[in-house]
Amino acid sequence: MARRSRPTRTRTTTSGASPASPHIRRVLPVFDVLDEDQIEKLEAQVDWILQDVGIAFRDDPEAIALWSREGAQVEGDIVRAPADWIRALCAKAPRQFTQLARNPDRSVIIGGVHQVFAPIYGAPFVRDLEGGRRYGDMAAFRDLVRLTYMHPNLHHGGFVTCEPCDVPVSKRHLDMLLAHMTMSDKPHLGAITEMSRAQDSVDMAEIVFGADVMEQNCVIMGNVNTNSPLLVDKVVTEAIRVYCRRNQGIVVVPFILSGAMGPVSTAASVAQAMAEAMMVCAYAQLVRPGAPFVLGNFLSSMSLKSGAPTFGMPEPVMSNYAIGQLARRAGLPLRCGGSLTASKIEDAQAAYESADSMHSTMLAGANFVLHAAGWLEGGLCTGFEKLVMDADRLGGYQKLLSQGLDVSDEAMARDAYAEVVPGGHFLGCGHTMRNYQTAFYEPKLSDSENVESWEEAGSKDMRARAYERWTGMLESYEAPPIDPGLREALEAFVARRKEELPDAWY
Amino acid sequence: MARRSRPTRTRTTTSGASPASPHIRRVLPVFDVLDEDQIEKLEAQVDWILQDVGIAFRDDPEAIALWSREGAQVEGDIVRAPADWIRALCAKAPRQFTQLARNPDRSVIIGGVHQVFAPIYGAPFVRDLEGGRRYGDMAAFRDLVRLTYMHPNLHHGGFVTCEPCDVPVSKRHLDMLLAHMTMSDKPHLGAITEMSRAQDSVDMAEIVFGADVMEQNCVIMGNVNTNSPLLVDKVVTEAIRVYCRRNQGIVVVPFILSGAMGPVSTAASVAQAMAEAMMVCAYAQLVRPGAPFVLGNFLSSMSLKSGAPTFGMPEPVMSNYAIGQLARRAGLPLRCGGSLTASKIEDAQAAYESADSMHSTMLAGANFVLHAAGWLEGGLCTGFEKLVMDADRLGGYQKLLSQGLDVSDEAMARDAYAEVVPGGHFLGCGHTMRNYQTAFYEPKLSDSENVESWEEAGSKDMRARAYERWTGMLESYEAPPIDPGLREALEAFVARRKEELPDAWY
Repeated sequence: MARRSRPTRTRTTTSGASPASPHIRRVLPVFDVLDEDQIEKLEAQVDWILQDVGIAFRDDPEAIALWSREGAQVEGDIVRAPADWIRALCAKAPRQFTQLARNPDRSVIIGGVHQVFAPIYGAPFVRDLEGGRRYGDMAAFRDLVRLTYMHPNLHHGGFVTCEPCDVPVSKRHLDMLLAHMTMSDKPHLGAITEMSRAQDSVDMAEIVFGADVMEQNCVIMGNVNTNSPLLVDKVVTEAIRVYCRRNQGIVVVPFILSGAMGPVSTAASVAQAMAEAMMVCAYAQLVRPGAPFVLGNFLSSMSLKSGAPTFGMPEPVMSNYAIGQLARRAGLPLRCGGSLTASKIEDAQAAYESADSMHSTMLAGANFVLHAAGWLEGGLCTGFEKLVMDADRLGGYQKLLSQGLDVSDEAMARDAYAEVVPGGHFLGCGHTMRNYQTAFYEPKLSDSENVESWEEAGSKDMRARAYERWTGMLESYEAPPIDPGLREALEAFVARRKEELPDAWY
Repeated sequence: MARRSRPTRTRTTTSGASPASPHIRRVLPVFDVLDEDQIEKLEAQVDWILQDVGIAFRDDPEAIALWSREGAQVEGDIVRAPADWIRALCAKAPRQFTQLARNPDRSVIIGGVHQVFAPIYGAPFVRDLEGGRRYGDMAAFRDLVRLTYMHPNLHHGGFVTCEPCDVPVSKRHLDMLLAHMTMSDKPHLGAITEMSRAQDSVDMAEIVFGADVMEQNCVIMGNVNTNSPLLVDKVVTEAIRVYCRRNQGIVVVPFILSGAMGPVSTAASVAQAMAEAMMVCAYAQLVRPGAPFVLGNFLSSMSLKSGAPTFGMPEPVMSNYAIGQLARRAGLPLRCGGSLTASKIEDAQAAYESADSMHSTMLAGANFVLHAAGWLEGGLCTGFEKLVMDADRLGGYQKLLSQGLDVSDEAMARDAYAEVVPGGHFLGCGHTMRNYQTAFYEPKLSDSENVESWEEAGSKDMRARAYERWTGMLESYEAPPIDPGLREALEAFVARRKEELPDAWY
């Protein structure tokens, strides 16, 4: 953080110790958009892809051998299988499971009525109002881990909140894991880009949680993409073998821009995504029956002019609603959506697109939402202001989902009507005094004052307020407590592995 | 438009003749959020307000006399009535009705599966990137009528798109009506602030449509607010007598900030709004059974710090979903929501809040959405950039609502899978070539290009692009055709009434 001079710890305003961030236990109903005919056609298409089209498992003889041994129809690297069998295998995955956090108060349940928000994953660039756009580095990464830890509306740390491009690719997963494990106590993901890196992730998790706990509980997950259309690389199957064999979770996400990695039709792309993820889920259940699995979906549209991906548009909004319903029918926890945008900066475009994307993600019942905060530029860039702007809005969704509409006697406020005359006001009445402090979601970054007050305060737009917020948060950061022996063991592991590994930039 | 120099009509890019803007015929299911218990409690509360609390009808002996004559329990100006009777009266209002436009292609259906978007109503100020924030005037008003006419995603002209503060209050309704009737051919609302102004509105509509057509059809509507809590001023009842006696429509909207004009509880405020609007609907049906009625709802939350209204927050989002379901049960067309925000400018706050507000408005099934575009600063200010920014997003909602998810054989794209290998792409396949031109909503104001292209084009934010869009639209504006005799008759009416009326600024 060389860019900013930090005052020494005075912390008069906010506490650096983040409050526990319970994830969402939803009471608001889900939004089912598909009728029986639509469900039937979509599921028939899924079955047709599984049975007749098939999905390739490439460069991984072990995966192909397992499919063959279990009775799938294997032709080269194409695997076809009876849909009933694939669905039966998927049914072995838990409908919901707990991912333990180092701090038990921050453990999350993934699946069912639970919804968990995590920040952006995988951006090579970062942007903030002071430093502009630049390659991500370890300093930025650590700040993002700090912010994610501190923010009450993010329940999960994700993993690659930005790529720390100043650390060799062969070693950066170690630094990232160490940061998540020591600078935060929220749950997080592990590495997947190579089998040994996945193994390092699971090994470090074992240092934190112990082998016995891991055998019984999910404490870390990998997030992998299929290579759509219809191709599963060995990165996926190897990650499954490392994570699932240890009973750890795996999130499998077909990344589809309709018209490129899937047909130029939302329905067909949704069905393809379901088929790909279910086939991989079935593989995971063959590797270890009952392994925690999250069915992922990342579907977006394209600009006709340039073929550039577009976000927050009606087609991906529709796909969120549709996949939510299909995932519930399949009985699998769902990852989809996020606060997605193609905008390069934190302007109105970014917010419109992110809000429509996230509103549909939320109503769709997505159980694990990666990219819920911080996403810019189609995922190429993590915005520091965007992170706290999105997260501020997540608090509103959290209230909506977890509280629904209270119709208790107290909420009906009948006594208030004895105090208020027609045309009067409820400002001072007993019911208001009893309830006003918890009645409304109080955002941190929305300015609702009148124009005169806003101008007096400098006519700041939301970006400027967001900059003040995240820099202020970092000033008051305090690392969560950690057993010194645990910290040493993690540091020793990282040091040893860094010794063993050559520097490599790919 | 003195601020800008307009090039003489060359119009090489866009045509000034706006394409027909069919409103939305929804195929996407509505989102029902309330369970039986919640519905029962809310409707019991509505009934209790109607029967036991009562609603005041103030300063209008004619209204009180009618209620007495029809058998309501009248005590001073408080009217109480059996809920069954009020519900039976509400059932006389049409579940849906057509509002004719001067151009029949632009007539709209209000109610049922139809959803109609109209711009902001009632702001005294306007703001644009060039002129900044200033009082609205007739020049700005006319530009807003032009833009609303031209924009394909706005189906209805609304009425007071800004207050033309340079025209005496006693006369400005005439200029506004003339602008809507001659510079646009979309449907619009009329004046309500005083009985004679409502009468002028209906009289001018009669010049356009003729008395016979008006006897059979809704051609103009008034939009009135109750004086919440529980008070109906004579503005409302008089407007009903003018509009409904002529079989014209009336939109009645309780404006409630929870904690001020209603209890600090979303459920209680929703129930109060339902009770107020249903009581007024019953009054309208007593005046003329079958008169077109739109049940309005405008509910928002407050900042704890200052008591300032807040928008786009979880409480009004919840109220949109709840009121949608209650209005469908009551069988009444609904007005609620809009692209609402407390932000002073077109920044990310404005867009986040507007999007969450509008996404819920849309899914709630709102049949008539005033404030769907252009709203800033809690409704005090009409933004020119905001108008086209919001309207650009409305096109996405329009597609989502009216198309839903296509699962036709063509949409399932099975032939594409014969052309594409695993890991390949669908970019050039036959299915893509047949469908790509209509596959995606193509927004005008979202920039989805890569950062290099965006920077080369000047690193413009969405506001800058919006400024270019609305100024460009105005440059290519062409008034819709109008019979010269009709125009003269309208102008003569306005001239005569202006002669008759004194200048008054209240």
